[in-house]
Amino acid sequence: MEDKISVYRKEHFNAAHRLHNPGLTDEENARIYGKCNNPNYHGHNYELVVKVTGLINETTGFLIDTKELSNVMKEMVVDRFDHKNLNLDVPEFKDVIPTAENMARVIYRLLRDKIKSELDLKVILYETERNFVEYPA
Amino acid sequence: MEDKISVYRKEHFNAAHRLHNPGLTDEENARIYGKCNNPNYHGHNYELVVKVTGLINETTGFLIDTKELSNVMKEMVVDRFDHKNLNLDVPEFKDVIPTAENMARVIYRLLRDKIKSELDLKVILYETERNFVEYPA
Amino acid sequence: MEDKISVYRKEHFNAAHRLHNPGLTDEENARIYGKCNNPNYHGHNYELVVKVTGLINETTGFLIDTKELSNVMKEMVVDRFDHKNLNLDVPEFKDVIPTAENMARVIYRLLRDKIKSELDLKVILYETERNFVEYPA
Amino acid sequence: MEDKISVYRKEHFNAAHRLHNPGLTDEENARIYGKCNNPNYHGHNYELVVKVTGLINETTGFLIDTKELSNVMKEMVVDRFDHKNLNLDVPEFKDVIPTAENMARVIYRLLRDKIKSELDLKVILYETERNFVEYPA
Amino acid sequence: MEDKISVYRKEHFNAAHRLHNPGLTDEENARIYGKCNNPNYHGHNYELVVKVTGLINETTGFLIDTKELSNVMKEMVVDRFDHKNLNLDVPEFKDVIPTAENMARVIYRLLRDKIKSELDLKVILYETERNFVEYPA
Amino acid sequence: MEDKISVYRKEHFNAAHRLHNPGLTDEENARIYGKCNNPNYHGHNYELVVKVTGLINETTGFLIDTKELSNVMKEMVVDRFDHKNLNLDVPEFKDVIPTAENMARVIYRLLRDKIKSELDLKVILYETERNFVEYPA
Repeated sequence: MEDKISVYRKEHFNAAHRLHNPGLTDEENARIYGKCNNPNYHGHNYELVVKVTGLINETTGFLIDTKELSNVMKEMVVDRFDHKNLNLDVPEFKDVIPTAENMARVIYRLLRDKIKSELDLKVILYETERNFVEYPA
Repeated sequence: MEDKISVYRKEHFNAAHRLHNPGLTDEENARIYGKCNNPNYHGHNYELVVKVTGLINETTGFLIDTKELSNVMKEMVVDRFDHKNLNLDVPEFKDVIPTAENMARVIYRLLRDKIKSELDLKVILYETERNFVEYPA
Repeated sequence: MEDKISVYRKEHFNAAHRLHNPGLTDEENARIYGKCNNPNYHGHNYELVVKVTGLINETTGFLIDTKELSNVMKEMVVDRFDHKNLNLDVPEFKDVIPTAENMARVIYRLLRDKIKSELDLKVILYETERNFVEYPA
Repeated sequence: MEDKISVYRKEHFNAAHRLHNPGLTDEENARIYGKCNNPNYHGHNYELVVKVTGLINETTGFLIDTKELSNVMKEMVVDRFDHKNLNLDVPEFKDVIPTAENMARVIYRLLRDKIKSELDLKVILYETERNFVEYPA
Repeated sequence: MEDKISVYRKEHFNAAHRLHNPGLTDEENARIYGKCNNPNYHGHNYELVVKVTGLINETTGFLIDTKELSNVMKEMVVDRFDHKNLNLDVPEFKDVIPTAENMARVIYRLLRDKIKSELDLKVILYETERNFVEYPA
Repeated sequence: MEDKISVYRKEHFNAAHRLHNPGLTDEENARIYGKCNNPNYHGHNYELVVKVTGLINETTGFLIDTKELSNVMKEMVVDRFDHKNLNLDVPEFKDVIPTAENMARVIYRLLRDKIKSELDLKVILYETERNFVEYPA
């Protein structure tokens, strides 16, 4: 409660993706996803911010060591997404359309087990400086 | 609840304004608003961020198409505020002092009807890199 | 409730610090704090954001005058922390390890009495662009 | 030559302006300046960067004390332009259209006499994050 | 000379690419390009800055109308590169490896004829916030 | 000449320092360096940009591999300056006052031998977002 604190850590990765739902017609895909439906892919410099909330450890003065948090983000997300084609190279998007919303949800699930359960977790993902998402809300 | 997500979209506009309450004396206006009370106006590059919260559409993977959200922001706010004098050119500020707080509230009301009612809405407005507001809190 | 708004103000200061708990062994300090345990100190350009939440004053259109908020932040924090060694020059860290978490908590306490009690207060502190904290959560 | 160095200092100011040449017709002004010709003004958060080039003082390790440079920029530019209407409140723009180009040239002339003549001087002025100028080229 | 000025305009586009020289072996490509050689592509949010240098038009106070410059950049570069796979969708990279260096050179050639010949032109291209190029030097 | 290009790479490090010339009196040091003369040190998040200029290698499309450039910057500068007290921990500043100007010159000399001699080299060092230097000019 009152004495909870949040710690944020930012990492980045660069990836290609395509927004396409194979269950829809080409016309529907073009209408819904516009330029993002390009069959040859396009890409982004993603900025990933993870927010962890809980009680400060009074011995260390840390909620969580940001170096450790950074390592978990690198192991579970950056090393697996960076310089990759999300649709083709990352198994989590085999049947999941890599919108920023779905990506944030996938990243949350990849990280949740790696962060102690008494700590709350949120994922903020910037697809561009002007488009970003936060999960869970 | 757990599966709600937030999507953010950023747009910008440049405008002039003056902070002045005609119901107060010149001395009171000078004391309250300082340099912002200059009768000849001054101006800012405003950055407007809109945050929309709700459930992901599982067919599209979108909460809301950021292109559509951008279009609503442009139609309701940017096209009406950009390169304008807020006090003289924008009817919403005829009797409302264009502080960042009042601007965020005006923008919220302009956008609320254009965003589906099941989606929550917040407006974040940067007057400068160092001064910004969020409405509702 | 619905009509509450938040105002944010950003200030900065540059300081040196060392993370070290004298109650732990040197090995434990090295393991926990890594490079941040350097006995000769290192330093940061801190960015301090204060978030104040409450009701708009309908006469002024302000929640709080950001100039006044800036002055309080400068008097209570910037003037006392800027170009200082946090461990040696700032009494609040005599027995408190200056992690970002503890710094945010100290800054909250320094500011809480200077902001009207009907206004909520949060402190966001950037130690680097990639590591930051928010207190209370 | 080889051992010259450049020092940059950034300051900011917020101002209103209008682009209008009274020697041209209203149609010509509208065609040339578009939205920037709004008779009621609009405004910007200007970022001003001054670049000074010369030899390091080997006693101090400074080319120029950035605190002094900051003070000159504040005295000659920020205090005279900030929260002002450039067209109405700043004498230098009485007969000079306040385009970013002309503003950089005016600022250069205001600063040139205040910086030692053996130091080269350049002015970089950001009107927005996306539009900026450098004088002299 | 003395009275020349430079005007900068920034635009952005998002694209996928792969660094691969078909004249080299797979081993050589892997060694030279590392992760950027991924056959399934990766991508970036590119920021493109164009710098134009020449004499101010004393009637308009402009070196070049940044709106016109923006339009040329959009027509020649952004509309042709944005949300594209540079290797597959952009003819200029059919036989040119889309490194940042080659991209800047291609963009320079696309823009050179569209900017008056008495104006000097430079292209600055950010592939990430940490990697960028300027052509010609 | 015409076909030269520049490549920039940015890295960062955090360090403590003190500006003090032991050949001057305490009064002179206080007057020249102000708050930066604090005997207990203060610190900064430094951003280091290295600019390399030369001819593109037509086989690779690179002027220089930014990964290699990054490695040189890390080996010669970041690993030796990061989380250090520049005055006490870095031999290059034993008799050199760690102003931004002197730091840029020291960094230039550390890197010059590690970059091929046919490539020009410049060092840009940000001490804060508002104070930065470029060497050689």
